[in-house]
Amino acid sequence: MSLDLSAVIADITATMASMEDRGQVATYIPELATIDPAQFGIAIATADGRMLTGGDADTGFSIQSVSKVFALTLALGKVGDQLWDRVGREPSGNAFNSITQLEHEQGIPRNPFINAGAIVVADVNLGGHEPRVAIGEMLRFVRYLAGDDSIAINEAVAASETATGFRNMALANYMRAFDNVRHPAELVLGSYIHQCAIEMSCRQLALAGRYLMLDGRHPGGGRVISPRRARRINALMLTCGHYDASGDFAFRVGIPGKSGVGGGILAIVPGRAAIAVWSPGLNASGNSCLGTLALEELARRTGWSVFSPPEDRG
Amino acid sequence: MSLDLSAVIADITATMASMEDRGQVATYIPELATIDPAQFGIAIATADGRMLTGGDADTGFSIQSVSKVFALTLALGKVGDQLWDRVGREPSGNAFNSITQLEHEQGIPRNPFINAGAIVVADVNLGGHEPRVAIGEMLRFVRYLAGDDSIAINEAVAASETATGFRNMALANYMRAFDNVRHPAELVLGSYIHQCAIEMSCRQLALAGRYLMLDGRHPGGGRVISPRRARRINALMLTCGHYDASGDFAFRVGIPGKSGVGGGILAIVPGRAAIAVWSPGLNASGNSCLGTLALEELARRTGWSVFSPPEDRG
Amino acid sequence: MSLDLSAVIADITATMASMEDRGQVATYIPELATIDPAQFGIAIATADGRMLTGGDADTGFSIQSVSKVFALTLALGKVGDQLWDRVGREPSGNAFNSITQLEHEQGIPRNPFINAGAIVVADVNLGGHEPRVAIGEMLRFVRYLAGDDSIAINEAVAASETATGFRNMALANYMRAFDNVRHPAELVLGSYIHQCAIEMSCRQLALAGRYLMLDGRHPGGGRVISPRRARRINALMLTCGHYDASGDFAFRVGIPGKSGVGGGILAIVPGRAAIAVWSPGLNASGNSCLGTLALEELARRTGWSVFSPPEDRG
Amino acid sequence: MSLDLSAVIADITATMASMEDRGQVATYIPELATIDPAQFGIAIATADGRMLTGGDADTGFSIQSVSKVFALTLALGKVGDQLWDRVGREPSGNAFNSITQLEHEQGIPRNPFINAGAIVVADVNLGGHEPRVAIGEMLRFVRYLAGDDSIAINEAVAASETATGFRNMALANYMRAFDNVRHPAELVLGSYIHQCAIEMSCRQLALAGRYLMLDGRHPGGGRVISPRRARRINALMLTCGHYDASGDFAFRVGIPGKSGVGGGILAIVPGRAAIAVWSPGLNASGNSCLGTLALEELARRTGWSVFSPPEDRG
Repeated sequence: MSLDLSAVIADITATMASMEDRGQVATYIPELATIDPAQFGIAIATADGRMLTGGDADTGFSIQSVSKVFALTLALGKVGDQLWDRVGREPSGNAFNSITQLEHEQGIPRNPFINAGAIVVADVNLGGHEPRVAIGEMLRFVRYLAGDDSIAINEAVAASETATGFRNMALANYMRAFDNVRHPAELVLGSYIHQCAIEMSCRQLALAGRYLMLDGRHPGGGRVISPRRARRINALMLTCGHYDASGDFAFRVGIPGKSGVGGGILAIVPGRAAIAVWSPGLNASGNSCLGTLALEELARRTGWSVFSPPEDRG
Repeated sequence: MSLDLSAVIADITATMASMEDRGQVATYIPELATIDPAQFGIAIATADGRMLTGGDADTGFSIQSVSKVFALTLALGKVGDQLWDRVGREPSGNAFNSITQLEHEQGIPRNPFINAGAIVVADVNLGGHEPRVAIGEMLRFVRYLAGDDSIAINEAVAASETATGFRNMALANYMRAFDNVRHPAELVLGSYIHQCAIEMSCRQLALAGRYLMLDGRHPGGGRVISPRRARRINALMLTCGHYDASGDFAFRVGIPGKSGVGGGILAIVPGRAAIAVWSPGLNASGNSCLGTLALEELARRTGWSVFSPPEDRG
Repeated sequence: MSLDLSAVIADITATMASMEDRGQVATYIPELATIDPAQFGIAIATADGRMLTGGDADTGFSIQSVSKVFALTLALGKVGDQLWDRVGREPSGNAFNSITQLEHEQGIPRNPFINAGAIVVADVNLGGHEPRVAIGEMLRFVRYLAGDDSIAINEAVAASETATGFRNMALANYMRAFDNVRHPAELVLGSYIHQCAIEMSCRQLALAGRYLMLDGRHPGGGRVISPRRARRINALMLTCGHYDASGDFAFRVGIPGKSGVGGGILAIVPGRAAIAVWSPGLNASGNSCLGTLALEELARRTGWSVFSPPEDRG
Repeated sequence: MSLDLSAVIADITATMASMEDRGQVATYIPELATIDPAQFGIAIATADGRMLTGGDADTGFSIQSVSKVFALTLALGKVGDQLWDRVGREPSGNAFNSITQLEHEQGIPRNPFINAGAIVVADVNLGGHEPRVAIGEMLRFVRYLAGDDSIAINEAVAASETATGFRNMALANYMRAFDNVRHPAELVLGSYIHQCAIEMSCRQLALAGRYLMLDGRHPGGGRVISPRRARRINALMLTCGHYDASGDFAFRVGIPGKSGVGGGILAIVPGRAAIAVWSPGLNASGNSCLGTLALEELARRTGWSVFSPPEDRG
C-alpha cells in the first residue's frame, strides 16, 4: 500500500488544529457543556492490524449515541430479526429527538439510531432484568470488542442526563402507550442513559469498531455477528447514522458512520479500517463539526468511499 | 474470479419465473397499466467488459424514475454544485410524490430522486430552451452512455402521463411559488415526462449505467463526470434511490440502486458491475417486486455489498 | 315562553332510548370500559332557575375532559391572562392526545382543551403545592359552582388512569423539556388525573355550568369570573370543545360545548340554559354519540343556536 | 335601544385614524400591493334597517376571501349538503394556502374558507359552464344580496392574481389528482380569481351580508337560504373565518367573521347587525390589522358577542 496513512493523519490533525469554527458543544446535557472545544483526536485501526493516531486520541469522551451501534449488535444477538418488528430501517428525515414520526407510525421508530429507536433497543436489551444487569452486560461487550477492560461509565454524565432527559422520557412513555416499550420508562432510560455515558478514547472506539470492518469477525478470533448482520449494521450507519444529516454525510464522506453528541464519530471502511474521530463542537445537525470535516478529508485523501471501485482505494 | 455469474443469473431468472406474488403494475399512468406482469429481465455489464443477461433482457420498458440518475448527471455538468442550492441530499422519509415536505422546507425538495427534486433538475436542464431541445439533449446523452443510438422515447407513454400528471403539476406550481421552478410548469413537465418515457431494455440500461461503476469514466474512453461526482451519485442512489424504502433496500441489498414505476431498477457495484433488472409488478413502496428480490438474491450470491470487505466480493 | 321544554326533553329521552347505534365505550381507561352503554341522561338548568331532567340524570359519571372547563376557570383566576403565554387559543386540527403539534410549536399547546393544554393548566393550578392540595381546591370549586357538597372523586377511576396514562406522561415530559411544565410530571399528572376523575350526575354538571350562561355570575350571588372571561371560555368551548370534531359540533349544534370520554357533555346557551347530557358510548372522534345527537335535536327543537337571531330562540 | 351606535362608530373611526401600527399590505397580489394603508372604513347594517358608517365606508376594495361566504351560499343552493362530501367543516390549524393537510386527508380540504376548500366550491359553482358564466352568476348574486347593481369585478386585480397564483394552481391540480376538482385547473382558477376580485365598499359589503343576520331572509323579502344553512354558515365563519387565527378572533371578538387579504372583514351579529370593516394593512395571520381591532372594540362597546346573554347585548 503506497498510501502513507501516518502522514495523512498528521496533516489532518494539523489542519483541524488550525480551524476556527469548531461548532457548539452540546448544552442539553449539563456535564457535557463544560468540555473544552479545542480538542481533536483521531484513531484508525486497519484491517492489517495497525493502529494510527493523531491529536487527543487517548482522551476519553462520552460516546453517547455511538453506543447505539453496540447496543443494536447486542440486541440482534438476543432477539434476532424479530427486532425489526419493533424498529424500522428507514432514515427518519427528522431530528434525532423528534416525536412526530412516532405518532404517524403507531409507536414504531423509523430506525435504531434515532433516540426513539435506541430506546426500544434498550428495552430489548433490558430483557426483564434490572438496569444494572443490562448496563453490566453492555460494558462487558464493549470491553470485549475493544480488548480493553479499562473502559468505564462516566457516572457524572449519566447523572447529568438523568436530570434533564425529559424528551427521552416523553419518547419512552409515548412508545409504552403502543406497547413498544415494555419495561417502566424509568428503568429503560436508566439503562439507556448509562449506555450513552460510556467513556472511551478514539483509540478504544476504533478498536471496538473493528468487527464492523471485518464482516462481523472479532480480530482476536471468533465471530461477533454474522457477515450479513455486519453489512446491515454498516448499511444502517450509512443511511441513518447522522440523524437528518445522514444523506449529506453519505454524499460528502461516503462511508458508514455513527455520531454522538459527545463529539465522537465511529466510521467504518469495510475491509480496510475502523476509524474514530472526536471533537466536542457540534454543527447544526448535532454531529461533530471537526470530526465530520476530518472524515471528509480522510476519505478524499485515501479514496476510502464505499461508492468507488475498491481498486481506487488506498 | 471463481464466481460463475452466468449460473447465478440463470438461477435467479428461473427462481423469478416461479414466483407467484409479482406485485401490482402501476396504474396511474394508463399506458403502463397494460403491461404484462409476467415478465422479468436482468442484464449485468461487468467492469471487465462482459455482458450477461437473463429472461426478458432485451424487451424495452419505460425507465421512468431511473431517468432521474441521468438527468442529475446532466444537470451537474451544466450548473455544477450550484444545483445543491435548489435541491437537498437527504432521504425524504415520504412517498415519491409527497408535497408536504416542500411546504415545511420552503420549496426546496429533499433530494433529486423524489419527483419534486427531479422536476427542479428538469427545470435546470431546460435552461431557457424549448422542451424539445432539452428532450433531444437527454436522449443523445443516454444513447452515448449506452453506446446505442436505437434508444427512443415512447410517445404513447409520454402522452398518457401528460393527461394524468396532476400531482406533478401541483409540485411544479408549488415550487414555482418559491421561485425554485423558473420555467412555466407545462414546459418543465413536458420535458420531465418525456425524459421518464425513455424506453430501454435491461441490456441498454446496464450499459448506460457503466460510468457509475467506473468512477465516472466512459467505458469507451473519456470521462462522463469526475470521480467525486460519480461517488456522490452512487451515494444518493443508496440513500434516496427507492423512495421511502431506500433504507430497506440498502439494508437488504446493500448496493446503490434507482428504481422506476415502470418496474426497472439500475444498480451499481462500484468497480464490479452495472446491473439492470426489470419486472413490471410493484411492491407497496412503488419499487419492482421481483426486481428487488432478484437484486437481493444476486447480492447474497455474489457478496456484492458495498458494506462488506472488497475481498469478500465475487 | 311558549316552548314546552319538559315535552322536548321527554321526546329526546324517548328517542335516545330507541337508538341502536350507541358508539363504543372508551376502553383506554379500564375502569370506564365496564360502564353499561345503555344509559342516557339529560339535565337543563335554565336562566330563570328551573331544572328539567330526563333519563339517567341523577346517575354519576366520570366527567373527564369536561373538568378542563372548570380547571381553566380556576387557572385564569390564579394567573390571569398570563396563562395565554403558555397555552394557545386555536383549534388544533388534531386528535385530543396528539403530540406532533407540540413539536412544531415549541411545547406550547394549541388550546387548553386538548390534553397537552389541560396539563399546562394543571401545572398552573398546582402552583408549587402538593397534588392533594390542588385536587382539594378543584373539588371545592366544583362543589361551589354546583351548590352540592356531595360531589366527589372516583378513586378507582383515578387509579385506573394512573396505570395506563403513558401518552399523558409523554406529553407532560415533552412540555417539561420546553419548560412549559414546571413541576415533576408525576405530580402534575397526579393532579390532572384526579381532576378528570371527578364524578358528577347530569343534574350536578348542569348546575355547575350555570355561571357560563350567566356571563360569569354565580346564580347564588357574586361573580365567579368577569363577563369577558365567561364569554371567552364559551368561545373556546365552541371552537375547541370537541377535539377534531369541534367544527362539526359548531356546525350541527351551534352552541358552546365541552365533551369528555366518560360520555358527558356540558353545553351552554348564553342567557338561556346550561345543559348536561351523558351517554357512555363514544363516536369516532371520542365524543358521546347519543349526547351529541341529543344536543343537536335539542338545538333544532328550541332554536338554541348562538348563530341565530335571539328572537328566534325558545 | 339605549346604545348610541353612531357615537360608537365615530369613536372607533377616530381611534383607528390614530393607530400607528397598521400592519402590512398584501404583496403577493401585485395590484393590491399599491393600496394606501392609511385607509379605514366601517359600515353597519342593522336588523331594523338602519345603515351607519364611518371613515372610508364608500371606498371600493377587493373583497378577496370574503367572497368565499357568498360562493359557499351559492354552492349550497346548487348541490345542497352533498357539498360536504367534498369539503370538511373543521378548522384547519394551518395557513390559508397550506397544502399539507390535503395530502393527509386524500384531497378533501378541511373547510370551505381555506383556499383549497374555496377552489372546490368554485369547481362546484362552475358546473360544466365556462368561467364567464359562473362569474356572471356570482356577480348577479352579490348585487342581489346588496341591492346594488353597481358592484363589479376589478379586472386589473384579477389579471394580477392570474399571473402569480402558483400556489392556487398547485392546490387545484393536487385536488384534481384525487378527482375532487373536476374541471381543468385553469378554468376553476379563472372563475375563482374573478370571484375574489369583486370590488365592494364597506357599505355594499354590509348590505350584502344582511341575510346572515336575518337567519337567511333577504331584507327585501323572500329567502336567500334556509335558517339552518344561515346558522351553519355563521358557525363556519366563527370557527374557520380567519385562517389559523380563527380561534383567536372568536376569543377576542366573539362574533362570526370572514376576512380577506384585501383588508376587508364581514362580521355578523345574528338578529342585530351585519358589519363590514376595511383597512388594507394585514397582521401576521393575514387578517386586517385595524379591521380586527375595530371589531374587537365594537364588540366590547356594544356587548355584541354570540357568547353573552342576548339581554346583555346592545
